[in-house]
Amino acid sequence: MNRLLQDLRIVELSAFVAAPLGGMTMAQMGAEVIRIDPIGGGIDFARWPVTRDGASLYWAGLNKAKRSVALALDRPEGRDIARAIITAPGAGGGICLTNLPPLQGFDFATLQSERRDLIMLRLIGNRDGSAAVDYTVNAASGFPLVTGHGGGPVNHVLPAWDIAAGLYLATGLLAAERHRSITGNGQEVVIALSDVMLATVGNLGYIGDVQINGTARPAIGNDLYGSFGHDFATVDGRRVMIIALTRRQWRALGRATGLGDRLAMIGQIMDVDLDTEAGRYEARDAISALVARWCASRSLDDIRKAFSGTGVLWGHFQDFLQLVSDDQRCSGANPLFATVDQPGIGRYFMPGLPLDFSAATRLPTRPAPRLGEHTDIVLTEVLGLSAAEIGRLHDDRITAGPDGR
Amino acid sequence: MNRLLQDLRIVELSAFVAAPLGGMTMAQMGAEVIRIDPIGGGIDFARWPVTRDGASLYWAGLNKAKRSVALALDRPEGRDIARAIITAPGAGGGICLTNLPPLQGFDFATLQSERRDLIMLRLIGNRDGSAAVDYTVNAASGFPLVTGHGGGPVNHVLPAWDIAAGLYLATGLLAAERHRSITGNGQEVVIALSDVMLATVGNLGYIGDVQINGTARPAIGNDLYGSFGHDFATVDGRRVMIIALTRRQWRALGRATGLGDRLAMIGQIMDVDLDTEAGRYEARDAISALVARWCASRSLDDIRKAFSGTGVLWGHFQDFLQLVSDDQRCSGANPLFATVDQPGIGRYFMPGLPLDFSAATRLPTRPAPRLGEHTDIVLTEVLGLSAAEIGRLHDDRITAGPDGR
Repeated sequence: MNRLLQDLRIVELSAFVAAPLGGMTMAQMGAEVIRIDPIGGGIDFARWPVTRDGASLYWAGLNKAKRSVALALDRPEGRDIARAIITAPGAGGGICLTNLPPLQGFDFATLQSERRDLIMLRLIGNRDGSAAVDYTVNAASGFPLVTGHGGGPVNHVLPAWDIAAGLYLATGLLAAERHRSITGNGQEVVIALSDVMLATVGNLGYIGDVQINGTARPAIGNDLYGSFGHDFATVDGRRVMIIALTRRQWRALGRATGLGDRLAMIGQIMDVDLDTEAGRYEARDAISALVARWCASRSLDDIRKAFSGTGVLWGHFQDFLQLVSDDQRCSGANPLFATVDQPGIGRYFMPGLPLDFSAATRLPTRPAPRLGEHTDIVLTEVLGLSAAEIGRLHDDRITAGPDGR
Repeated sequence: MNRLLQDLRIVELSAFVAAPLGGMTMAQMGAEVIRIDPIGGGIDFARWPVTRDGASLYWAGLNKAKRSVALALDRPEGRDIARAIITAPGAGGGICLTNLPPLQGFDFATLQSERRDLIMLRLIGNRDGSAAVDYTVNAASGFPLVTGHGGGPVNHVLPAWDIAAGLYLATGLLAAERHRSITGNGQEVVIALSDVMLATVGNLGYIGDVQINGTARPAIGNDLYGSFGHDFATVDGRRVMIIALTRRQWRALGRATGLGDRLAMIGQIMDVDLDTEAGRYEARDAISALVARWCASRSLDDIRKAFSGTGVLWGHFQDFLQLVSDDQRCSGANPLFATVDQPGIGRYFMPGLPLDFSAATRLPTRPAPRLGEHTDIVLTEVLGLSAAEIGRLHDDRITAGPDGR
């Protein structure tokens, strides 16, 4: 949290990862981000992982520092209120972020007729309007078929396309808001999840590889494509990833393991220049055979000591439990984290924004709201409704607070 | 490409994916992005995939629409020129983006002493300054040990942490530039790649899962955690991913396959409510057994026809070759792409920015520069050097143009 964007108000109609992450990134820089959900919660309100009581740790994680308003979006009066919040006056308001199919009356043209300088960011599945989610886009990307050792597709577990899309939304929002602050004009910004995938596959050179070379990157397990990188077992049952992208890292590996002379002989045997990435890639199995024996007689701790301060680029594999319990970076020693009391869940480590701004003090991480926690305050502050009007809306079940009513 | 940020000038000292992607995203919105490299190229200049001649498709993909300046960064005069370009006057200048260890004299304080309102974005490995790259950060993240069926770590192939970091840099840059345009003050913005990973693991609920539940998500192959999603073989040797996140998608799957009544019986047999995500997750193997038989007797094309217009959420797996040759989204029909003549490589499909801005016309995708292509024009336009001065710098091998001299 910081206050860099404290003059902005953004309304989110969202679910799952991408748009919620985009909005949360704005909230973590101080923007007022109002997530509007149907009474009872959106389609992601119970998404896993959940607590034993069924409270979603995922929802809490992706909606930190936002305000939550619960409205009967299936009724005209509920939709009118949502539209009024989106298009409410104020220089930093009039920004809507969504990845849901548009409700009736929530298309850009209609909203713009209610606020001239509206900015609307819309994430869609495919450009033609058809549905796509991280799982389907990933299947099409080519990556699952070169993950692991081949023989069948392996899905990523990190929803990487959604995360990239969320951060493109954040970038697009700030670019559109900058344009508005200079010209006074709003606009609609649209991004398709499948285009995020396609752009990335192209950016990394894989489309060119097919069109120029007529080839495609093979599945090579955990090896690093076009350079040296491999995972090795340790004597104590752990695994480490050792990498040599640069000549300096390659030389450091030879020195730190004492294998420098033998590794150099591999270059002669294989007739490649091991000071080049292509040479190391060509000779990777021979290199790995030597390094594997070195690792296999050492514990993770031995390897940590041997590599400490040497310039070897390496890391060890750990599971989520080990990450949380053993990794100093995932602890109170890292200012990224704060122990936060999340209503309905309990106290645990919550990350803030990974960006550190020297001109904007890092403030404590704020929890996610309870669903509907800010219904009344938003109706008061943003729409100027009276207590009596708000009471009537609750009675009519047009709005709900954190108790679900 | 568009012209949204045409008044900004950003200088990049970068390599590999993250900072180059951040800078390219700015260039694709019209900013003048000057990537400064050592003469002969940086450490990523030959990164794979490459053409048969060794030209990097990866470098071309991540540096589109930029200007390239080649300088002898190992000599004081080369570094002086680089510093002068970074700190050159102009309201939209004075922005530096880097993921390299700082050269002597390129720390924030020194650069700020030459331009008061300097903005510097710096991606580092770990917060303590130690090295970390996508491969080591990923190993620590917990994800490789729950990718695939367990039994050993499986690395992602998409450098997802680098991509997220690059887009956080783009977001941070625009937020810092917004702050400068309001207050006149520059700042340093720092982000650690490992913090991008930690924040994401936390945002998705996996840290809370460990701390609140004492458990961690298991490896479940290509299944979707906490809902229904599975991959199935077709009769013609393809594989499809079928998903039911929402009740509507679940009902659609039953209708489109004609298996609705049988699927409903699974709910009774397993004693779960299949209208909930948790119920479908619990019963996923039984559901998959039925759907697998349905898919196994059908071709990909049969399945496409059966699901068309039904609301079933699904996609098929394809490799990079199939993506490029068979997928309509990866073709000239998609305005994301243009056939671009990349110097030193040839003509192929290059993606532009996936964001469509209604207030900023999409312009043709621009290729990556040849290394040093813009050395002379930048020395002229940004530093105001004369032809004679530029000639002297070339003679002294302080600068180089696209011919390497």
